[in-house]
Amino acid sequence: MRSHYCGELNDTFVDHEVTLCGWVHRRRDHGGVIFLDMRDREGIAQVVVDPDTPDAFARADNARSEYVLRIRGRVRMRPEGTRNPNMATGLIEVLALEVEVLNTSVTPPFQLDEHGKVGEDVRLRYRYIDLRRPEMIERLQLRSRITHSVRAYLEGQGFLDIETPILTRATPEGARDYLVPSRTHAGEFFALPQSPQLFKQLLMVSGFDRYYQIAKCFRDEDLRADRQPEFTQIDIEASFVEEQDIMEITETMIRQLFRDVLDVTLPEFPRMRWAEAMQRYGSDKPDLRIPLEMVDVDDLMTSVDFKVFSAPANDSEGRVAALRVPGGGRLTRKEIDDYTQFVNIYGARGLAWIKVNDRSAGLEGLQSPIVKFMEGVVDELLDRVGAEDGDIIFFGADKAGIVNEALGALRVRLGEDLALYTREWAPLWVVDFPMFERDDNGRLAALHHPFTAPACSSEELKADPAGALSRAYDMVLNGTELGGGSIRIHDHAMQQGVFEALGIGEEEAREKFGFLLEALAHGAPPHGGLAFGLDRLVMLMTGGRTIRDVIAFPKTQSAADLMTDAPGEVSAEQLRELHIRLRSKASEQS
Amino acid sequence: MRSHYCGELNDTFVDHEVTLCGWVHRRRDHGGVIFLDMRDREGIAQVVVDPDTPDAFARADNARSEYVLRIRGRVRMRPEGTRNPNMATGLIEVLALEVEVLNTSVTPPFQLDEHGKVGEDVRLRYRYIDLRRPEMIERLQLRSRITHSVRAYLEGQGFLDIETPILTRATPEGARDYLVPSRTHAGEFFALPQSPQLFKQLLMVSGFDRYYQIAKCFRDEDLRADRQPEFTQIDIEASFVEEQDIMEITETMIRQLFRDVLDVTLPEFPRMRWAEAMQRYGSDKPDLRIPLEMVDVDDLMTSVDFKVFSAPANDSEGRVAALRVPGGGRLTRKEIDDYTQFVNIYGARGLAWIKVNDRSAGLEGLQSPIVKFMEGVVDELLDRVGAEDGDIIFFGADKAGIVNEALGALRVRLGEDLALYTREWAPLWVVDFPMFERDDNGRLAALHHPFTAPACSSEELKADPAGALSRAYDMVLNGTELGGGSIRIHDHAMQQGVFEALGIGEEEAREKFGFLLEALAHGAPPHGGLAFGLDRLVMLMTGGRTIRDVIAFPKTQSAADLMTDAPGEVSAEQLRELHIRLRSKASEQS
Repeated sequence: MRSHYCGELNDTFVDHEVTLCGWVHRRRDHGGVIFLDMRDREGIAQVVVDPDTPDAFARADNARSEYVLRIRGRVRMRPEGTRNPNMATGLIEVLALEVEVLNTSVTPPFQLDEHGKVGEDVRLRYRYIDLRRPEMIERLQLRSRITHSVRAYLEGQGFLDIETPILTRATPEGARDYLVPSRTHAGEFFALPQSPQLFKQLLMVSGFDRYYQIAKCFRDEDLRADRQPEFTQIDIEASFVEEQDIMEITETMIRQLFRDVLDVTLPEFPRMRWAEAMQRYGSDKPDLRIPLEMVDVDDLMTSVDFKVFSAPANDSEGRVAALRVPGGGRLTRKEIDDYTQFVNIYGARGLAWIKVNDRSAGLEGLQSPIVKFMEGVVDELLDRVGAEDGDIIFFGADKAGIVNEALGALRVRLGEDLALYTREWAPLWVVDFPMFERDDNGRLAALHHPFTAPACSSEELKADPAGALSRAYDMVLNGTELGGGSIRIHDHAMQQGVFEALGIGEEEAREKFGFLLEALAHGAPPHGGLAFGLDRLVMLMTGGRTIRDVIAFPKTQSAADLMTDAPGEVSAEQLRELHIRLRSKASEQS
Repeated sequence: MRSHYCGELNDTFVDHEVTLCGWVHRRRDHGGVIFLDMRDREGIAQVVVDPDTPDAFARADNARSEYVLRIRGRVRMRPEGTRNPNMATGLIEVLALEVEVLNTSVTPPFQLDEHGKVGEDVRLRYRYIDLRRPEMIERLQLRSRITHSVRAYLEGQGFLDIETPILTRATPEGARDYLVPSRTHAGEFFALPQSPQLFKQLLMVSGFDRYYQIAKCFRDEDLRADRQPEFTQIDIEASFVEEQDIMEITETMIRQLFRDVLDVTLPEFPRMRWAEAMQRYGSDKPDLRIPLEMVDVDDLMTSVDFKVFSAPANDSEGRVAALRVPGGGRLTRKEIDDYTQFVNIYGARGLAWIKVNDRSAGLEGLQSPIVKFMEGVVDELLDRVGAEDGDIIFFGADKAGIVNEALGALRVRLGEDLALYTREWAPLWVVDFPMFERDDNGRLAALHHPFTAPACSSEELKADPAGALSRAYDMVLNGTELGGGSIRIHDHAMQQGVFEALGIGEEEAREKFGFLLEALAHGAPPHGGLAFGLDRLVMLMTGGRTIRDVIAFPKTQSAADLMTDAPGEVSAEQLRELHIRLRSKASEQS
């Protein structure tokens, strides 16, 4: 029906006849002629309809916002002074010869260029309108180019695209499963997969050697932290490999992706041990664009007359750390109070600080509520953090976990507030993770998942599980975890050892993962892989503010679809066929 | 860890040192040396281990079937007389220098080359073993190449890969939805999509212009007819198009796919009206590889003294048709009885026949239980069907629907039994479908789905809905429906007209598809598309016998996964969180 996209046109088409199909983005009458901004997927072109073509003029005259038109016309240069070099098609316009109305439109719930005036709920309710906004179309176009580039690379590397089931058995990962009642098996349920983890490992046992899938995954959990009940992973697994192999393959993939799609050349990814990341940045996914670093000062504080510092300094699980902020001396008391509020969120009970006004003036040159307690150590402190005039130094003193979270978050907040970013892209590999972490009940829990191979022998694992490191690796970009992976356990005995360390009894292990243990006993190759969060990757690459910006039909934070009004009620008959019934409001209370 | 795949090796590698990783496919001792057939994804290579390398020899000696080994060795020609030119690697062998055992294996539940000796249930229970069979690996490799080729083509054509939700609102299509209870919305449910139909139409309303997705779809229905609860569609939709555009794009895609993957050049796809297909082949997806055709003979039978023929011949809804089978004269009475049984399945009450032994002998030359009733018309009958000596002619006489089903099925059965196939690939477009069919209660039901555009105006549709044709098209290959599609309704009023014809009241329409009707009122472009069944396409291209052969982890015909033992029971706690409870056995009865 069309000869060109609106957005394709430019001055090389002058005097060509073109046929455009699209939507009326704007309509203006000016000096007796009608100007239509016609919009399609590729952009906007200005169409001029003048009274010399009466039929066309009449139709254009009746056209309203978002009408669907087909226009035949001739491309010409815009008159001098009306040209818009900032717009792809800004030098030309199309003089209409024929206008056909393909469809009308009621008045849209909001004007596309005024979408900011309505709440997100309205935009989600009319998602098909919201998706007409050029930036939304561009983001999803880019998403398509991103998956295309990833697929091309992986297939070039001999990875096979293999689908794994969506109707599966409940998975082990912590978060909660979506369940699907079975009609044929009364009282039984499928679970939607939180990841294809077990299936991709079985594919390795089968000998597929190199697998990938861009896979839908599901997690029924709190969505406030910008998560979605269904999300997409770039899932990768390979056999006869070690950490180096997977890290090389995937780093190359991401660097090529950024070249292909954004024309950005990422630097080589540095590698950092987990322990170092926590110590210097208080985070296992540090944003290296921010030049601020935490510095340990425990040793200086063990005997200061300030319990808030001396207690954690003398506690093996405590930490006292300093964060020097160049130029932070200009922060107002109000701003400092706000930051104190901010670190409270992370459990810090306060935020001590020292302003360095004039180092040459000694204590006189320092401004601080606490400096009086540490006269003896303040010089060494300032030297250690490299303090200069005009700096402010913040302190965290508490259990190490709290100090890391609080100062780590403060570091990022300051980086944004004071615009301290040194570069646009800061990728990083984090390695040498602990095998386990302690949950709230002090029990060991897998830091990644229970199939991650430890970096030690079964014996060493048994002797000191809490101290064991894993063969896991995370790829981090600008403080966001792009993906995580590991070398897996391919040894049946080692897998049982890990289950033991996790307090998963043989009974439970057989019940939950019997088929995996069995598979590991049937000739499993050494293997490992990695999974990327596609939504977050696309969000980073397109500059979206939330992953809802890069998903065509996202759910709200209460896991609802406002457009189709899902979830919804179903008939008693349907429930009967599924062998279930609703719990009565009464029993809900109980 | 490896330098080459086993299957890669050939005589160009002679004298090269290689490192292989893989599984022990077979192990033989012969003349004091050990022969290992090492298997990986790409094939099998013969490794020779001799006692001069004692460590390697000892390890090879202990190796059993399906052990995972890493072998360093030197490639050499096999001795004259032991070469196997039928095998890719048959000319060479690898003399082992080093053998490393990467993993052991318990005795597998079945030997790969003896999989035929165990039932499919055992193979599904140990799917990770069954998938080691070279033909299974090849099929899934081909499946990966097929999706790659399809994606490359569609992306080249400007189609955007856009994901649509898996957690959706219940869909309109007849078959049954899988439901997912919501945790956050007590008593409400999501449905897994039977197709992305509504979402892809909304993407067209948004202006994405060209969309595709290789999408998981779900249908909770009887699986006996080689279906799976989750299946995969190549889903395509485009705007500002007509039938021709979609048919050209998709036909080109399939022809290119066959060239890329099978090196097969398909002929141009002929087009056949639905009515003609039913008349000549009794099927809306005729297998044109079979040269047999049904011929109408109603007019000859109106007054024969044989009620079985004359009744339907005089019934406007009846049909009397003949099927000439060249060379069928040699069929035995037993075989004819079997075919009579066979057509019974399709509701035919009998199977009349005439053997043409010697046309020149007139009636004497014919052998048949019924010919005596039709003396007056038999010559014209034989002329019309083009009977020749040695033929058999079968007859169907009943309601047209039964005749079409019975003779249509018999036609295919005879094609197989008598090996009448004339060529390997017979593609076809079937067009001009009726808009509606009558369900068992005589109500109109959509032949495709209720969003299919009629080939007539709203007024004509209102006047004679039952007679209306649709703008739908099916792609058929070798008697299998590869895909179906249509131009959609983009006009709000027309959509409501179709809902009316289907007896879907305004209330119900708003309740079920309110968001679609609303979208159609907001400037919907003309659009249409098509969806291919990927599993069936891959099955045809790989020569699989069932779609379970081309799915890595399929479900059984009772929708169970024998390997992971899904579906399974869940905890009372989980059910409570989902606001549901199981129906008691007692209430199951009620």
